[in-house]
Amino acid sequence: MPDRDDRITLSHGAGGTAMAQLIDSVFTVAYGDPSAPRDDSAILFPDRAGFEIPPDQGAEQGIAFTTDSFVVDPIFFPGGDIGRLAVAGTVNDLLTSAARPFAISASFIIEEGFPIADMRTIACSMRDTAEECRVRIVTGDTKVVPRGSADKLFVTTSGIGRVLRPGVSGASAKPGDAVILTGSIGDHGAAVMLARENLLQTEAIVSDAAPLTDIVMSLVEAGCDIHAMRDPTRGGIGSALNEIARQSGVAIEIDESAVAVKPAVAAACEALGIDPFYVANEGKMLIIVAAPDADRALEVVRKSRYGQQAARIGGVRPLPAGRVQVRTSIGTSRILSPPSGELLPRIC
Amino acid sequence: MPDRDDRITLSHGAGGTAMAQLIDSVFTVAYGDPSAPRDDSAILFPDRAGFEIPPDQGAEQGIAFTTDSFVVDPIFFPGGDIGRLAVAGTVNDLLTSAARPFAISASFIIEEGFPIADMRTIACSMRDTAEECRVRIVTGDTKVVPRGSADKLFVTTSGIGRVLRPGVSGASAKPGDAVILTGSIGDHGAAVMLARENLLQTEAIVSDAAPLTDIVMSLVEAGCDIHAMRDPTRGGIGSALNEIARQSGVAIEIDESAVAVKPAVAAACEALGIDPFYVANEGKMLIIVAAPDADRALEVVRKSRYGQQAARIGGVRPLPAGRVQVRTSIGTSRILSPPSGELLPRIC
Repeated sequence: MPDRDDRITLSHGAGGTAMAQLIDSVFTVAYGDPSAPRDDSAILFPDRAGFEIPPDQGAEQGIAFTTDSFVVDPIFFPGGDIGRLAVAGTVNDLLTSAARPFAISASFIIEEGFPIADMRTIACSMRDTAEECRVRIVTGDTKVVPRGSADKLFVTTSGIGRVLRPGVSGASAKPGDAVILTGSIGDHGAAVMLARENLLQTEAIVSDAAPLTDIVMSLVEAGCDIHAMRDPTRGGIGSALNEIARQSGVAIEIDESAVAVKPAVAAACEALGIDPFYVANEGKMLIIVAAPDADRALEVVRKSRYGQQAARIGGVRPLPAGRVQVRTSIGTSRILSPPSGELLPRIC
Repeated sequence: MPDRDDRITLSHGAGGTAMAQLIDSVFTVAYGDPSAPRDDSAILFPDRAGFEIPPDQGAEQGIAFTTDSFVVDPIFFPGGDIGRLAVAGTVNDLLTSAARPFAISASFIIEEGFPIADMRTIACSMRDTAEECRVRIVTGDTKVVPRGSADKLFVTTSGIGRVLRPGVSGASAKPGDAVILTGSIGDHGAAVMLARENLLQTEAIVSDAAPLTDIVMSLVEAGCDIHAMRDPTRGGIGSALNEIARQSGVAIEIDESAVAVKPAVAAACEALGIDPFYVANEGKMLIIVAAPDADRALEVVRKSRYGQQAARIGGVRPLPAGRVQVRTSIGTSRILSPPSGELLPRIC
């Protein structure tokens, strides 16, 4: 018998340290460039013949490319469905590179027996979400597997965007930068957990799944000096902030009282025994911006539909590199460590 | 109780008419452009700001974008595995638009308990296949679902390529064109079926899964007047030829004796009760080329590793539009209809 470490566990898909180790030990070794930044999109510089332009030949404008599989359970939940989640998630990943999303692909793995009416609802939800953020779904694939070989429906979306502001990366946060969060945390994860467990569902807890194109494009157009962005999905802002701190080799300090958690979400998280800092969001962005531009950036973000509750939640410090600290409302300080294991399977 | 027609069946994933109906009734209605050609890749024309260039403004060089999910069972089979299949399949789809593939994304849905050693083998197989055809795997995602929610491993790859020759499309075949097929048919489907059923496996039956970059790039560089290409995967050449005939509004006539089927593959297909014309290939290309260039194109293709057995198998006729006919070796003629239902589930 192989021991436990030799098999994939749910922790390996949770967006935490176990997943990072799997990527290091399997995927990066096999085909990645270990020195490449671990961002949500890859940035490509193809020439007219379809070859990569070498970095020293000064290609100025890249193409962002990203992919994500969605396995959320249930596929319909308060505030959205797997289709909206997929389009918004892929669009938001492109946006983290300050790219304008222009095309999405959608591939479906469907369990035999899945209702066609549900398939149509989800396809329409994808269309509506794509129209909302002015991106086109241009190509797709459909595979059907026998009953029992998949659970209902999995959707994989990929996206392409044009990079409008080069150099925005999780590796580009600088000491002195401000950290902006575009709204409250934990809404998506709490909504899905309650729906899955058939627990008390309230109108106060709905997924925030949304494409954030307006927020990011407004920031780019306003010329704000954005350094890094990340949409805090699996693993929540706890995971996303740790990724940025590690990639950039900086410390990040967060003011707990500035991080909004809706009372109903906070209560649900407490009842479920989970920390909202580690709960998935699907319509929020962490934005690391040069301090002189912070107030203006906040003003720009707040004008967008999904950014009205945006707040400056902290700042970037030089040391200790890779560490995220939270100043609590009672004046103490705690370390926000990267999540290690499984928190919420099939949350996105 | 909803009746049978209201639920997804295996036929909906088989690459035949049931699948086309599902795409028409659900996916195209919901988000597609029904007038767009049904090719394996979408062609995009983004400007520097990330907006689509309108067709009348003469963007000359497009970006090809494609996606495919792979659910093959078993994941390891003679001649390949799900990883090689995914990279080759995505590369070949880009090639059908005469595009040079330059980047691939890979997203994994893994069942809890899947052996990490197998994951590593598959990742290495993807790297090897990508290196073979000089494409980079640049971004990815990993989701883990609880045991029983997926069958081992599903891989979704998307790809981007630079279109080198505009206008190559399933809708561009013209009466008088020649039809070239790059090698024997049925190898992949037969290999997977025998492996799955634990039937007699022989060295004579191995999957042909392979990236066909060299074949297509050589044709483009030689300046051959290619009109249409399609890699005959699900549904085999029967399905692919019917798609081209319908899209282009032409008839296609195939000479059965010119279509190579390895004796062992022919025997296996007969034993399994399936027609090799409808069995999946994963390393073959149908190439529709202007007649004056046919001999030269054949010569170019035969110089490539995977095109040595290429043959001119037929031609394009004006009428009856949308029909594919096969002239048999005994001089009779039969219609090769599009496959309607399920032939071989989880073949790719």
